[in-house]
Order: sequence, then C-alpha cells, then structure tokens
Amino acid sequence: MRQAGRILKPYRQLKEKVGSIQTLFDDPELITQITLMPVDMLEVDAAILFADIFTPVMPIGCDIVFDPGPTIGAPLRTLEDVNRIRAYEPEQELSHVVQAIGEITRALPASVPLIGFAGAPFTLATYLVEGGSAKEYSRFRQMLRSDSPCAHALMSKLTDVTIAYLQMQIRAGVQVVQLFDTCVGALSADEFTTICRPYLDRIFAALESSGVPRIYFGLGATHLLDQLGELSVEALSVDWRTNIEKAFNELAGKRPHALQGNLNPCTLFGSPDHIESEATKLLMATAGRAHVFNLGHGVHPETPFDHVKQLVETVHAFDG
Amino acid sequence: MRQAGRILKPYRQLKEKVGSIQTLFDDPELITQITLMPVDMLEVDAAILFADIFTPVMPIGCDIVFDPGPTIGAPLRTLEDVNRIRAYEPEQELSHVVQAIGEITRALPASVPLIGFAGAPFTLATYLVEGGSAKEYSRFRQMLRSDSPCAHALMSKLTDVTIAYLQMQIRAGVQVVQLFDTCVGALSADEFTTICRPYLDRIFAALESSGVPRIYFGLGATHLLDQLGELSVEALSVDWRTNIEKAFNELAGKRPHALQGNLNPCTLFGSPDHIESEATKLLMATAGRAHVFNLGHGVHPETPFDHVKQLVETVHAFDG
Repeated sequence: MRQAGRILKPYRQLKEKVGSIQTLFDDPELITQITLMPVDMLEVDAAILFADIFTPVMPIGCDIVFDPGPTIGAPLRTLEDVNRIRAYEPEQELSHVVQAIGEITRALPASVPLIGFAGAPFTLATYLVEGGSAKEYSRFRQMLRSDSPCAHALMSKLTDVTIAYLQMQIRAGVQVVQLFDTCVGALSADEFTTICRPYLDRIFAALESSGVPRIYFGLGATHLLDQLGELSVEALSVDWRTNIEKAFNELAGKRPHALQGNLNPCTLFGSPDHIESEATKLLMATAGRAHVFNLGHGVHPETPFDHVKQLVETVHAFDG
Repeated sequence: MRQAGRILKPYRQLKEKVGSIQTLFDDPELITQITLMPVDMLEVDAAILFADIFTPVMPIGCDIVFDPGPTIGAPLRTLEDVNRIRAYEPEQELSHVVQAIGEITRALPASVPLIGFAGAPFTLATYLVEGGSAKEYSRFRQMLRSDSPCAHALMSKLTDVTIAYLQMQIRAGVQVVQLFDTCVGALSADEFTTICRPYLDRIFAALESSGVPRIYFGLGATHLLDQLGELSVEALSVDWRTNIEKAFNELAGKRPHALQGNLNPCTLFGSPDHIESEATKLLMATAGRAHVFNLGHGVHPETPFDHVKQLVETVHAFDG
C-alpha cells in the first residue's frame, strides 16, 4: 500500500510543518519516521521505503520541482542531454537513503520486512523527456521513432542508475524490491517489447544473485500480461483492472510468479460491509494461489483512515 | 480519426484567428468548415462532426472554460446540483449543430458519410463531478460508493441528454453515430457493470430503431472487452493497446460486431517505411474480418501532416 502515508494525519501534519515534500525525501530521520507510520498505525505486514521515483536521478543534476506534480527544469531531449546522466556511487551520493534503510530495519520487528522501491526506467524517462506528467507520453514515444538511439541511450542510462540504486538498497538491508512502472500502461505490446523489456530484463538479471524477491508493478498493464509473465521476477503486482483469476490462468504456462495487489482502491470509499465483502471476494479468489494481498494502486488521498484499518483487520482475520 | 484537425494548418490558423476554441464549437459555419477539412485535405473515407463532448450540456447551464483543458465552474457534487440538469429540445437549443450537420451533409460527396459524435455519460460525469480532468476519477468513483443515488441520478440525466442529442443528430442527417468513452478505462469490470452498462444499454436501445450504425469507443478498455462485447452496437472501436486478433477471437461467441481502429497513433511519428509496415500489418491481421481502419485514438498534435496523408494512401492502395 504505497503512499498509505497520504491518509495518515501525522504524515500530513509533518508535510505541512516541513512545507516541502522534497525535504521529506531528503532527510533520513523523516524517511524513517514516514516509512514506519503505516506499520505502526495500520499494522500492515510489510513496510515500503518512503522515497520519490526521482531520488536516484537527483545526484545527476535533474532539476525537479513539485508544483504539486513534478516539473523538470531542463527536460532531456537530445543525446547530449542524455549523456549528462553519469554513473555515481549511491552509497556516497544517496547516503541519506542508506542511513534511513539502516534505521528502518533496526526499528522494524523481525516479522515485518522492508520493501525497497524504485521507479522503472520507462516511467522515469517519460517524466524526464516530457518535463512533467503528460497524458500519453507522446514526446518520449515520438523520440522512440524519430531518434531511437537517443531513446535507447536514455533507457540504458536510467537502467544503470536503477540497478546501482536497488543494489545499494539491498546492501543497506531491504528484504524485497519493488519496481514501479506507473506509465507503462500507455504502451502497445510492441512498444513495451522494444523500449521496456530489454531494460527490465537487465535490471532483474542484475538483482538475481542477491536472492532478494523482485516485484514488478505495471499500472494499467492488463494488456501486457503476456509480456510481463516472461519477466524474471518473483511477483507481478496487478492493478484493479486485471481479472485476477484470468491472470492466474494466463500466467500458468509461464515462469512461476506470485501475483500481488488487485483490490480496487476505490473499494475503501465504501461502507464497512462493502469493504469486507470485496476483500473477502479477492481472498477467496486467490485462496490456494501465490498471492500477496494489496491494493491495485496507491490509497486515494480522500480515503478515511478507519476504512483502511478495517481492511487490514479483515485480511488478518480471514481464514480461507 | 477524430481531432485530425489538430494537425491541419488551416485548423490551427482558424483557431488562432478566432482566439477561443469555444467559438469554433458554437458557430455552424466554422463547425462545417472544420468537419470538412480532413476529408478535403486527407481524403479520408468519412467525416466526423466537429463538436466538443460538452456541447450537449452547454444548454443546461454547465459553465465550462478551456484553460487549455476544460474546467467546470460549478462542479456537480450533490443531488441538488444534479437535479439542475433539465431536459431540453436540442433542435432549439443546439440549432447551430443542426444547421452545421445540414450544411456538412450537403457539402460532402455521397460516398462520404458523416459520423455523429457524443461523449459517453460516464466520461461527461467524471468531468462534471471532478471539475476538470483528473487522474483516476476518484471523486466520481467515491460518489458511486458514498452517495450512489446521486451518481446514478447524474448518469441517468446525462443518458437522457445524450439520447436526445444523438437522436437530433440522426434527424439532422448523420449516417453513423459514435459514442466516445475516454475515461472508461479507469474502471474495474464491476464498476463498469454498475455505473456504465445500464446507461449505455439505454442509449443504444433508444437509437436502435433509427437503423443508423452505432459505434462505441472506450479508451484503455482492453480489460473490459468481455463486457463491451455485449453492447448493442454495430462496431467497437479499440485503442492501440488491444491485440486485435485476440479481440476478434474473444468476441467471436458474442453479438456480431465490427472492430474499428487499433493503429497506434504514435506510428505516425515514424518513417514512411515504418508507417507503411505497421499499417499493412494491421490490414493483413484484419483482412477478411469486419474492420474499419482507423487510429486507436486521436492524432497526436505533433504529428506531421504528410505522415497522415501517407497513411491514408497506404490504406487506400492496400489490396489484401
């Protein structure tokens, strides 16, 4: 339940007190405090590192302002722009993240793992090329056709950065890693195969020897399930659009994967009865299957805290 | 190829000269001129009425400003707000649309049909409730759970307005109607069944006796294909995410439908060879099937005119 913080009063108070979300991402004490909040307040079974998708590109001079969505000061449009992305030592230049992971893992009970987090290269690339959020990422998808070497160079550089960043998180102590591909749903299967697949393969291969379970989440990617089923990951996180029983069946002949997620985050707007019946429906549909209960995407900011708490209790009480 | 106008120089010049996009939607001469442009300049096989999705809610006092995306002055949030939506006579209150349809059909060669156009109730509802564009339409989806009578009342009122609007277009002379559901892709299958399906059924049933072919387009709706296959329409328009061969197979046991669209609009950013090979691939995949060649969504504004022209020529020259 990434971004569960949004609905927690202490998180919102902290954000208001500090005044800038960037400060929250930069301060190891605050990262620790925020990462632990959902575990303490909601009693979820795992923590997920509080970090921005842009954290790993901060040291390479990407100038990002939140207003409130991210805006990139100097979008990357040419091979020259892309070549400014340099390799760096995450232990040195992101020492606040290393420090936070150490503090979080020391603070968490042994039964609660910490999930590391990074944005996938395609999602990062769309923001860096568009200059902010965009509807169908047509600028990057245009670059892929009109200047394919530039698009691939960007993906390759971001892949290197992502690998170094996630390997650092693993060395620092995260017990699982999850790669978020929030923008991938805009792609056709051919585009995914051309511009995402090779880079995802490189990331997951580089993490293989760590033995740390790897999760990939593609938002709106039901139409890519065939391709996703071939990724070298232990779990695929699916959003609320996916029919999870069909997904288990479609993936049956592929590499063995657990599925994660799928509960419609809007369910939490409903009554306690509605929440219980929807959660139970998902628990029944996945009983006996490898499934990690989770929402299909982040909690909507307007969601009442009590509803989320009730969901966690329903899942814990389920005896399928 | 709705919104093909975007890439046409005379359209952009007209828009700049007039200064406001609203003026383009309100003036029958300009509607006519713009609707005819793609037929004249690109030699496409059909024209689609130039109209905004908000045209049918203008007479009922919805206050919409383009800035550049639509912003609703007074979003609809309560049953009281919704009850302000009243039935009206489209022939009287949208006489400029009636006049434009008459002029367009008189101007078009007999071999080029005019496609009528409306936004689907769900897509309209999300804008009216959110107050503008929004990511996952959580406000309306929240209303669906916290105030379901209000959500259904809104859908029902918009359905009545849409039926009257499309019946008026048919009386005025359009030869096909297409309903655009740009926001539907955010919904789970359950949400679609609850909040869209009954209203779509009502619209398509009301149009049945006209004998005019009905097309439904759901953007990002690959995951809803099962449900869409049950709609009483002659054609389903699918975006570039849908695997069209799979879609034909999945729909085989259902009501007979033609499929429309599917070509990735980003294809048009590619080289002439790329455009030709992608178009040919789609033409081959659909040869012998009921398929209306089209893009999977509107033309991206940065698309070169020559590329679109070449696509039309490729399709016309195809001899499958």
